[in-house]
Amino acid sequence: MPTGLGARAAKELTMTEEATETLEDRLSGIHRALEQQQLDHVDAVLADLEPAEIALLLESLPPATRLQLWARVPGGEVGGEVLLDVHEEARSTLIEDMDHAELVAAASELDATDLAELFEDLPQQAAQAMLGSIDEQQRARLQERLAFEADSAGRLMRTDTVTVRADVDLGVVRRFLRLKEGVPDNTHALMVVDRDGVFVGALPLARLLSHDDGLTVADLMATDVDTIPAAMSAREVATLFQTHNLVAAPVVDEAGTLLGRIVVDDIVDVVREDSEQAMMNMAGLDEGEDLFGPVLPSARRRAVWLGVNLATAFLAAWVIGRFEDALDKIVALAVLMPIVASMGGIAGSQTLTLAIRGLALGQISRINSAWLLRKEVGIAVLNGLLWALVVAVLAYLWFGSVGIGVIIAAALVINMLAAGIAGIVIPLLLKRSGVDPALSGSVILTTVTDVVGFMTFLGLATIFLL
Amino acid sequence: MPTGLGARAAKELTMTEEATETLEDRLSGIHRALEQQQLDHVDAVLADLEPAEIALLLESLPPATRLQLWARVPGGEVGGEVLLDVHEEARSTLIEDMDHAELVAAASELDATDLAELFEDLPQQAAQAMLGSIDEQQRARLQERLAFEADSAGRLMRTDTVTVRADVDLGVVRRFLRLKEGVPDNTHALMVVDRDGVFVGALPLARLLSHDDGLTVADLMATDVDTIPAAMSAREVATLFQTHNLVAAPVVDEAGTLLGRIVVDDIVDVVREDSEQAMMNMAGLDEGEDLFGPVLPSARRRAVWLGVNLATAFLAAWVIGRFEDALDKIVALAVLMPIVASMGGIAGSQTLTLAIRGLALGQISRINSAWLLRKEVGIAVLNGLLWALVVAVLAYLWFGSVGIGVIIAAALVINMLAAGIAGIVIPLLLKRSGVDPALSGSVILTTVTDVVGFMTFLGLATIFLL
Repeated sequence: MPTGLGARAAKELTMTEEATETLEDRLSGIHRALEQQQLDHVDAVLADLEPAEIALLLESLPPATRLQLWARVPGGEVGGEVLLDVHEEARSTLIEDMDHAELVAAASELDATDLAELFEDLPQQAAQAMLGSIDEQQRARLQERLAFEADSAGRLMRTDTVTVRADVDLGVVRRFLRLKEGVPDNTHALMVVDRDGVFVGALPLARLLSHDDGLTVADLMATDVDTIPAAMSAREVATLFQTHNLVAAPVVDEAGTLLGRIVVDDIVDVVREDSEQAMMNMAGLDEGEDLFGPVLPSARRRAVWLGVNLATAFLAAWVIGRFEDALDKIVALAVLMPIVASMGGIAGSQTLTLAIRGLALGQISRINSAWLLRKEVGIAVLNGLLWALVVAVLAYLWFGSVGIGVIIAAALVINMLAAGIAGIVIPLLLKRSGVDPALSGSVILTTVTDVVGFMTFLGLATIFLL
Repeated sequence: MPTGLGARAAKELTMTEEATETLEDRLSGIHRALEQQQLDHVDAVLADLEPAEIALLLESLPPATRLQLWARVPGGEVGGEVLLDVHEEARSTLIEDMDHAELVAAASELDATDLAELFEDLPQQAAQAMLGSIDEQQRARLQERLAFEADSAGRLMRTDTVTVRADVDLGVVRRFLRLKEGVPDNTHALMVVDRDGVFVGALPLARLLSHDDGLTVADLMATDVDTIPAAMSAREVATLFQTHNLVAAPVVDEAGTLLGRIVVDDIVDVVREDSEQAMMNMAGLDEGEDLFGPVLPSARRRAVWLGVNLATAFLAAWVIGRFEDALDKIVALAVLMPIVASMGGIAGSQTLTLAIRGLALGQISRINSAWLLRKEVGIAVLNGLLWALVVAVLAYLWFGSVGIGVIIAAALVINMLAAGIAGIVIPLLLKRSGVDPALSGSVILTTVTDVVGFMTFLGLATIFLL
């Protein structure tokens, strides 16, 4: 077997024997080995793992053990890839643990795409040191990348594109590829460019293999292929890949010059991070939050979110305080009022979650938002009436007062209606103002349902029962 | 240019001109055209779109307009692919609108992978009709697929694998591929099998192109390639692709016989659906929920979740009811008690969301859960003390009672501690019992923080203030 190919090939396909040994088994093994200082065993386990798996192991360990394991991870290329695979917060704890020489060694093995991603997370001093230590060509490439905005196609693309000219015979292309050896593993098509480097078409390898010599590249290439502008956001690129079922796409500058290519493998990460982000943001968390990170920074970050919520909770309390008189006279109101607020909050968060997903998928627009609002109002009325009836009966049985039963039913219907409307209107308004609806939608919604819930229930009681 | 290649090639790469016309523009255009019965315009727009884009348009339209548009979508292959691309609930509204002949026409163009997915959603009668109308070969293939569990590798794989034998010369392989024409577009490697169809290795196209004739497949193929068992779950396959940076992987049965291949393009959908599902489940929604679906079924499904929440809200109300005496004497308790419950709920949902993500990524295990619990307790104590101080001061200023300030501070710290512990323990217990933590974690958590919050605040007040 030709040398130098085994390692590359292994990555394209998969190893299930390892997969049957679960992460949990490996974690306990590593944990025990580190405790008993059986470093040979640790090294043996690490040697068997892909960088992404080492990253997952590191993320699953508390800080002290994590750094012990990190010290055993081979430097250079493996170390660099591991750094890229861990989430942001964990990444910075690992970087803090490295000296400049180690950082430079890790960086020097990365391509420009990965280097740019890593570079942005480096502390100022380490970043300066790295810029000073990498060679001039690498520095130039890094700066080219950093010129593109974060999370743009220009940052995401790979530059290991294999290009050919249109007028070349297929036989010549085949000889060229043989001389070149080592076409990148995930090459799906050769990119065809003109004399100025402008993209003119693509020649899939499968097609090159299915045809005889004698034809030229121009005869066989696909030309009805448009291109991704380097400034397009990663999220838009991901949408394009999914709606067009793309495998690979060329990235070009404004003049149409080929800059690189994006392959579907890279899109998987974008899609995963995007969905994770929405879920984390809805709980007021940062996407890069480190599950096993140190207590103090986590506490500080989460404190902000709790403070915002406290302000809204005090607003709700202030509303309740307006009705001290009613509460003083009818204690049942205090007992039942959380039910009204809670049902509104749950109903509203269902609508809000649907709206946030719909906005992310691009399904909601001016055309259909009125229809959507009517639908959610319809659902709110139906479910409001259904559960209002149940609550009214239970409240009557509990407190023996028809008045309280009627009033809680009315308040419940009104609050669920407000929840349905707020669940659509709030994310639309946030989106229009350029604010991520996942980030602040739920606090605002809960404020609405708490305030409306307490105010209608206690207000109606004040009017009709006092 | 050789015929029959243009259409295929266009899919591999991308069309940005269309992308600049936003979905919103297209939606308004289609909407207007449908209203004004300009069906030629509708047809022209549809002819320009990929199936996944048509699916998105359909999902973005209210039921009546959706069916009008669906009637204009070409049947056969396009119709079949569109059906597969829409979410489940929307899919069934479209299927209901089709007669048997249309269904059979759509089905007959789908490969076995897609057909099996579609088949499971068909109403009984339509399913029977389809089984009766497809040819025997297609029926046999469909039944083979249905024998694999839903969401397994056996369902996910494609069977358009190109196989070769190990002892063949590369020149022969190249001639074979030329004769074959039309190697599937996203073929990344040829699969090498023995006489019995057992998988023995993989030969990447890039490698085939970089080497001269004279070598055999065995000389060049990668053999350190393991395989995906057909029974592996789609989620595990996705994890494997991500941790091993895979582009394609062979699927085999228990004897090692090659059954098909899974490519990274298919993984994108699995990853997206998986993350969407967690977010939707946390709000008690179904992943397939149709944003523009009819009101009644949506209301019915969501009613169940609201009912569960109502039961827990009554539990909280019952707890409050135990302290009627205190509430009757000190009205400030009723005003302030939602603050304690709400802060616990927010803090708990932060921990819960992190734990749910950690479990999904496989980061949490027996080894580290104790450490994690200590960390969350630490954060809860720090943030509890910080905000307890703020709340105590504000409560004192509002009601002029040191006792109330001290008691609400104590209750807040206790409830946030309970929230931190519950946020870790609840998802771990649910996971161990085989229940999806995203689905029921948040209801249980809110119950805990409501009950603990009301009980400690009102209980302490009863003991010390009455």
